[in-house]
Amino acid sequence: MPSSTPPASYASLPFKDIAVTHVPADSPTATKVLIVAFDRPQKFNAVNENLLNELETVYNLVDADPRVRAIVLTGNGKAFCAGADLEVGFAGLMAHKKSEEAMRSYRDQGGRVALAITRCSAPTIVALNGPAAGFGLTITLPATIRVAYSGAKIALPFSRRGLTLESCSAFFLPRLIGLSNAMHIATTGSAYLASDPLVSRLFSALLPTPQETVAHAVKLATDIAANTSPTSTKLMRDMLLYCPDTVEKTHVLDSRLFLDVLGGRDNMEGVKSFMEKRRPEFGGKVVVDGGVWPWWDVRTGEEGGREKAKI
Amino acid sequence: MPSSTPPASYASLPFKDIAVTHVPADSPTATKVLIVAFDRPQKFNAVNENLLNELETVYNLVDADPRVRAIVLTGNGKAFCAGADLEVGFAGLMAHKKSEEAMRSYRDQGGRVALAITRCSAPTIVALNGPAAGFGLTITLPATIRVAYSGAKIALPFSRRGLTLESCSAFFLPRLIGLSNAMHIATTGSAYLASDPLVSRLFSALLPTPQETVAHAVKLATDIAANTSPTSTKLMRDMLLYCPDTVEKTHVLDSRLFLDVLGGRDNMEGVKSFMEKRRPEFGGKVVVDGGVWPWWDVRTGEEGGREKAKI
Amino acid sequence: MPSSTPPASYASLPFKDIAVTHVPADSPTATKVLIVAFDRPQKFNAVNENLLNELETVYNLVDADPRVRAIVLTGNGKAFCAGADLEVGFAGLMAHKKSEEAMRSYRDQGGRVALAITRCSAPTIVALNGPAAGFGLTITLPATIRVAYSGAKIALPFSRRGLTLESCSAFFLPRLIGLSNAMHIATTGSAYLASDPLVSRLFSALLPTPQETVAHAVKLATDIAANTSPTSTKLMRDMLLYCPDTVEKTHVLDSRLFLDVLGGRDNMEGVKSFMEKRRPEFGGKVVVDGGVWPWWDVRTGEEGGREKAKI
Repeated sequence: MPSSTPPASYASLPFKDIAVTHVPADSPTATKVLIVAFDRPQKFNAVNENLLNELETVYNLVDADPRVRAIVLTGNGKAFCAGADLEVGFAGLMAHKKSEEAMRSYRDQGGRVALAITRCSAPTIVALNGPAAGFGLTITLPATIRVAYSGAKIALPFSRRGLTLESCSAFFLPRLIGLSNAMHIATTGSAYLASDPLVSRLFSALLPTPQETVAHAVKLATDIAANTSPTSTKLMRDMLLYCPDTVEKTHVLDSRLFLDVLGGRDNMEGVKSFMEKRRPEFGGKVVVDGGVWPWWDVRTGEEGGREKAKI
Repeated sequence: MPSSTPPASYASLPFKDIAVTHVPADSPTATKVLIVAFDRPQKFNAVNENLLNELETVYNLVDADPRVRAIVLTGNGKAFCAGADLEVGFAGLMAHKKSEEAMRSYRDQGGRVALAITRCSAPTIVALNGPAAGFGLTITLPATIRVAYSGAKIALPFSRRGLTLESCSAFFLPRLIGLSNAMHIATTGSAYLASDPLVSRLFSALLPTPQETVAHAVKLATDIAANTSPTSTKLMRDMLLYCPDTVEKTHVLDSRLFLDVLGGRDNMEGVKSFMEKRRPEFGGKVVVDGGVWPWWDVRTGEEGGREKAKI
Repeated sequence: MPSSTPPASYASLPFKDIAVTHVPADSPTATKVLIVAFDRPQKFNAVNENLLNELETVYNLVDADPRVRAIVLTGNGKAFCAGADLEVGFAGLMAHKKSEEAMRSYRDQGGRVALAITRCSAPTIVALNGPAAGFGLTITLPATIRVAYSGAKIALPFSRRGLTLESCSAFFLPRLIGLSNAMHIATTGSAYLASDPLVSRLFSALLPTPQETVAHAVKLATDIAANTSPTSTKLMRDMLLYCPDTVEKTHVLDSRLFLDVLGGRDNMEGVKSFMEKRRPEFGGKVVVDGGVWPWWDVRTGEEGGREKAKI
């Protein structure tokens, strides 16, 4: 997987179960925003192994591509994503239960996509254009922003299938909608309208049609791509996710990170363009030479990245 | 306390300060839902030591009883629970201050009930039918779902009595309603309507009368009892409460838990009943032989249950 | 800095960039509430180094002053606080980048004020009377309560200036408004009305005018000063901020803290005044002799204050 060589055009990549579009569609080299869509409309975009692999591939490509500043994630056709394809089922996964050792080394593929979205240098804006169930909903949780068609139905039916929360959703769900709502919807396994107060806080905006939902997400992505520093937005997302657990420890970390970016290219351009009342031209992605990012172990999520030596 | 021998009928147990009812009331052997009610209506259900002991007993019985799938917790009479009975006062507790050693070994009895609710294999749905103060409110926080009569008044008057947050409420409150609201209501010690935005997020639904509040809770409990796997719901509640503190560590844990339940009795029945468009018949409670649950030390809450050896 | 000798009148202190008023203004010795105001109205209360020093000074004075029970923090003139004074800029901070050692020892001055607010024995009620940007918003986050003029515009423009979250805001923001809203507003860097659902949960109340906003904050502060125990409110704020990360560990801590305050002066007065239906006369601030507060290292935020020896 050539994840470190960004393609000239993402639209020309030979994906089968996802579709990638440039914004604007006709000038890939000028692209700062990509639309990534689940593309199995006849299956309500239910996911199979290939689709998950393709998602992981595109996220890894974008992570290393300084041109792409934001991704809109949506579904082609009427659904956003129906979750695991039950016609395929989980039979393939059973092989991982053959030994204690196999069980220990197994890593959920949905979770790997969740990690790819979390780690990607570009933020994801989800346009939930239609129904989402199971993985179809949990995969939206690592995104930076979610907007939804108010009539979309969403569900985490795990309790009704004898399954559990996957794709790191136990981490994200209570942080996004609070423990009360998280407990409620995980336990019942029922379906809710996106506008239901039990789930509506997942979404920054509720739109009256699927089309307006995608348009709103593209507008947000375009604004972020045009006006914000990729280094700043990536650092801040990571600060929110990997924040120390006390005020005092946060003070030590954010003092250092502030110095790391202070006087850098994006900071100079950000202040200058503001004073000159013009659009900023920000540089590439998170590369603060000599800085403390990442301050955790990016492989394991444990404490102790660069910061151990430097803060 | 014969906590491991479930009774034929909970309604026949010799409780004095709580009342337990089967749903449906006339067929205890078919029971999946219990209503547990504070039963000191003349005292607005203020709690004494015996009431707390009885609550702990019934929760320990249910924990080991595969028949009971959900508990509705409510109050008989006009109040939900007025908190500690100030006529009794805290005089008895003063004895625990007699030595440094006694202070170290003391464990708050309200907190012990909070732990029993948290640990119970069956989820609790609180029907807050009327006023709740102090412990009367904090004891609702470990429940899985809370619904309330919109006219009920609730308060945490600790700041006005020279006391502090008890029954593990400092853990639950900010997770349920956010730190901003938690700080506000703990500091003022004032009373609020259940519908006040400062507290309303505690509740999944606000109902116009106390009767409809109990009916709504029973309906939710009955739906959960009929349609969800006890193993799934218990695992997911524990995943939300004992979730690792990073996305990466959550990925490791949920990958393993998913395999633990995959292909098990409840998973097979969950998928099969869905395909056959019929109600599922799920099995008993959390027993995934060879699984990693519990992955924390259930006695101390520290890291290092079974998973240390297995994940 | 004579931080341990409270002045007879805060209004007579020689502050240049903040203004401190007693409530009521004409009887400083009877004061339980102070109004602290950013006082550079011609600069929209943009902050410079002196203003931050003065804020830190007044908070340290109040921390040691048993007379002051609550602080209202607001802005003089039309703005609350415009953030860093861009005319001054960050040039002074660049000196801290001269060596790796200098970078390690640097501590953000805004964060030091955030810590002073967090640690202060008196709770802060923010009256957000007008626009707030950058530090002007992040400095409100450690307050106990925030109320706002509904027409006030607020923004975290860091992403548009090539900067990052400072003043411990990465710790507070997701706890106050949830991770979904925190990610959204940090990433876009856009301005929002205080009444916008993306940010409105920061505020306990939205008022129709700046004047009513300040009046509402003073009313809350006066109620807290008159009716609540300073020991209780400080302990509970710290319990919410430095809470152990599991239910079981919280149970151990809150059991001990409850005994620490039980039967103490404020507890006796709190119960007695309640029984006698009169206003309580609570004592000074957090001093539970022999108690376990603080149970963390107040300097570093790490585990292991007094409790390690005692719980």
